[in-house]
Amino acid sequence: MVTRKPRREAGAPRAGKTVRVGVLGYGTVGSALVALLLDDADAIEARSGVRFEVAKVAVRDPSRRRAGLPPRLITGDPKELVTDPSVDVVVELIGGLEPAGGLVEAALSAGKPVVTANKELLASQGSALAKAADAAGVDLLYEAAVAGAIPLIRPLRESLAGEGIRRVMGIVNGTTNFILTMMADGGMSYTQALAEAQRLGFAERDPSADVDGHDAAAKAAILASLAFRCDVVADDVPREGIASVHPVDVAFARRLGYVVKLLAVAERVENASGDDGAERDEPEISVRVHPAMLPSSHPLAAVRGAFNAVFLEGDNAGELMLYGRGAGGPPTASAVLGDLIDASHRLRQGSHAPLVRRVRPRIRPADELRCAWYLNIDVLDRPGVLAAVATVFGDHGVSIRSMEQVGLDDEARLIFLTHVARQGDVRRTLEGLRRLDVVGHVGGVLRVVGDEEDHAR
Amino acid sequence: MVTRKPRREAGAPRAGKTVRVGVLGYGTVGSALVALLLDDADAIEARSGVRFEVAKVAVRDPSRRRAGLPPRLITGDPKELVTDPSVDVVVELIGGLEPAGGLVEAALSAGKPVVTANKELLASQGSALAKAADAAGVDLLYEAAVAGAIPLIRPLRESLAGEGIRRVMGIVNGTTNFILTMMADGGMSYTQALAEAQRLGFAERDPSADVDGHDAAAKAAILASLAFRCDVVADDVPREGIASVHPVDVAFARRLGYVVKLLAVAERVENASGDDGAERDEPEISVRVHPAMLPSSHPLAAVRGAFNAVFLEGDNAGELMLYGRGAGGPPTASAVLGDLIDASHRLRQGSHAPLVRRVRPRIRPADELRCAWYLNIDVLDRPGVLAAVATVFGDHGVSIRSMEQVGLDDEARLIFLTHVARQGDVRRTLEGLRRLDVVGHVGGVLRVVGDEEDHAR
Repeated sequence: MVTRKPRREAGAPRAGKTVRVGVLGYGTVGSALVALLLDDADAIEARSGVRFEVAKVAVRDPSRRRAGLPPRLITGDPKELVTDPSVDVVVELIGGLEPAGGLVEAALSAGKPVVTANKELLASQGSALAKAADAAGVDLLYEAAVAGAIPLIRPLRESLAGEGIRRVMGIVNGTTNFILTMMADGGMSYTQALAEAQRLGFAERDPSADVDGHDAAAKAAILASLAFRCDVVADDVPREGIASVHPVDVAFARRLGYVVKLLAVAERVENASGDDGAERDEPEISVRVHPAMLPSSHPLAAVRGAFNAVFLEGDNAGELMLYGRGAGGPPTASAVLGDLIDASHRLRQGSHAPLVRRVRPRIRPADELRCAWYLNIDVLDRPGVLAAVATVFGDHGVSIRSMEQVGLDDEARLIFLTHVARQGDVRRTLEGLRRLDVVGHVGGVLRVVGDEEDHAR
Repeated sequence: MVTRKPRREAGAPRAGKTVRVGVLGYGTVGSALVALLLDDADAIEARSGVRFEVAKVAVRDPSRRRAGLPPRLITGDPKELVTDPSVDVVVELIGGLEPAGGLVEAALSAGKPVVTANKELLASQGSALAKAADAAGVDLLYEAAVAGAIPLIRPLRESLAGEGIRRVMGIVNGTTNFILTMMADGGMSYTQALAEAQRLGFAERDPSADVDGHDAAAKAAILASLAFRCDVVADDVPREGIASVHPVDVAFARRLGYVVKLLAVAERVENASGDDGAERDEPEISVRVHPAMLPSSHPLAAVRGAFNAVFLEGDNAGELMLYGRGAGGPPTASAVLGDLIDASHRLRQGSHAPLVRRVRPRIRPADELRCAWYLNIDVLDRPGVLAAVATVFGDHGVSIRSMEQVGLDDEARLIFLTHVARQGDVRRTLEGLRRLDVVGHVGGVLRVVGDEEDHAR
């Protein structure tokens, strides 16, 4: 039975107790947040019971004037900000590993709750920072770090705290989803769609962090850590980007009833004994980022343009999906604000969110993963070729679910869908096919997920 | 600046402190919850840091044997259970107003957090019970009361605590969504689809609570109360059920690019001055339940069968959707478990979730609401009829967006889509049309939402 501590403070914080916020960084999110805190303080207080005041905003060049930011709030000394006794809560919106990491640590050590949107930092040092926050007795909250405005981290940490989660699949990068949507709808090539995304401001001039999957891999690490209560870092996440996705494969996918999406996937590996592994000291999981074909009836298939969504499968909860805007100033600032209110309530109560137990998981090697595959192979159009190709599949234990031949002058294109197969077996099948004289080119290779029993085993 | 209370307890509750749960009711959800707590106690403790023990289960007939429930846990005295000093937390799964309401009150008065899935009770006495919980310094949590396993209440209460919410639209009743999905896919009549739903266990033998919108209205009241921090009860919610939805209108809707869904809608009324009304003492809102036509590209349109989803529009967060299983034993028990863990953490910290400020809102009268409409009218097929019909629309200030005529022997069917119009004007238009000699029958009348600027004004 619980020995209940005597009650300290009832209900919402009372008016008149102002929470002073120190903000590190004044980019897209920082400026949206400061505008919200300055302009909507009354409304936010009426809604939440918390009165916020912007104490200071640390910027790189304090001499530059910034629209909407009163000069008296600007400081060029972030180290002073995070230890300033008049700052109650610190918001870190600088991004990257350093100096952000050191500043977050210093703020926590000074007993200040920290709200951050820094996915790189969390995907690299999340476990150590969570321990530092717990040791200091304050909160480290990061709803804004994955999927912007979508309530995702809090539901995972709290609502699903007791749920056995089987799999998390997310469209967590708006740039790549925008590009893939343009390719599917407009028949554009990857290069054309990327240029369009850049023109409309959905992609950076150097798009590699998005299109090569780095951004999604950091988010996958954070999601895997929370879903499986373990310590996964970005370097644990094998990733494939979307630069190799061809319009012809997007079109074939559509004809076969699928859409192509870049997915961040984290799943529990069910081992042979049927034990789900979640309760051992070392859970075994799979985590990765890659383009995949999803059935067009899958809830994630309807997530278009720059929107994000995360699809979860739980032992008891069943299928859940959380959908919304994954980026942009106001949506991300909205997620930061929710965390600020939560941190303020807990700060006043002298409590903080409980530490999630984190152990290093075993990470299933990529070759051991099992899913169905789509393969697009150009061959010479002559008798016996299909037999030769099929023999290579059979030799490596890869079973063919369907095959369709499409004529191409004196060549033929073969479109295969396989049954669930080990990735290592598919890899060796592809090596074998490339060695065949009759095979001209192995084109698109895509995983097929979401339409059958394709959980990791 | 915040005067911070000294820290009481760090991190997750430690192992060895068992939380004893008293469960009121052993129906579908109660038995799933008890099974979870009995069978998965180790896994839940490993995941959440909380060790649960089932203290007692109160049932109506304690002499009856129940599979999976050890007889020593059964009691026939719920009043004794809610004041039993060895019970730490009470879960109320009886449903209905009484005796559930009195038992919840008694448990709160005895200083016990309560977790409930009772939408009727919350939609009737939610405000008083929240105050009672706050006065007792404990939690009243009800994630399971709306949309089953979907994390919805906690995101609204916490993640969006500072967000200005414009509108909440939910598919919150699985039975009616199943029936409408069958009508859309299989061309079934309402009666056929209802029979199929009953055969498959998705509808009760007496389906009125679902098909007449009572269940959805209770959930709409709960959602409106949380989204707009006010006190809305089920009786505030005008409702229309789905019994009057005809297959022909479902088919026309599809041809026009829409799907028909039963929606629970709560929205902030923007007044003429542009002030959003949310910060006054008396916010003005609209809340109702009715079938509506949604564009097939709308995220809610893809919510099929017995699934639930809630779509939110926030000033900063933008569009969000939370999707999942809205009913069933294990999904609902999963939501209860999340609340139990949260309540246990806070109980041990001596804190509880902050009270949401609730005032009585002004509720906009139905006639003042504005949206676009679909109307299906049978008329005599002779010259001048369209002019006569159009005149009635014009006389009442209802502007026609599109009209399509479909031949029916010597009659014709006219399918109208209107621009946004006041409901009172549409009502008077319909009255005028029914008085015309050339109008044989006014068939389907459906609101059209989600494809234009149709927010309440």
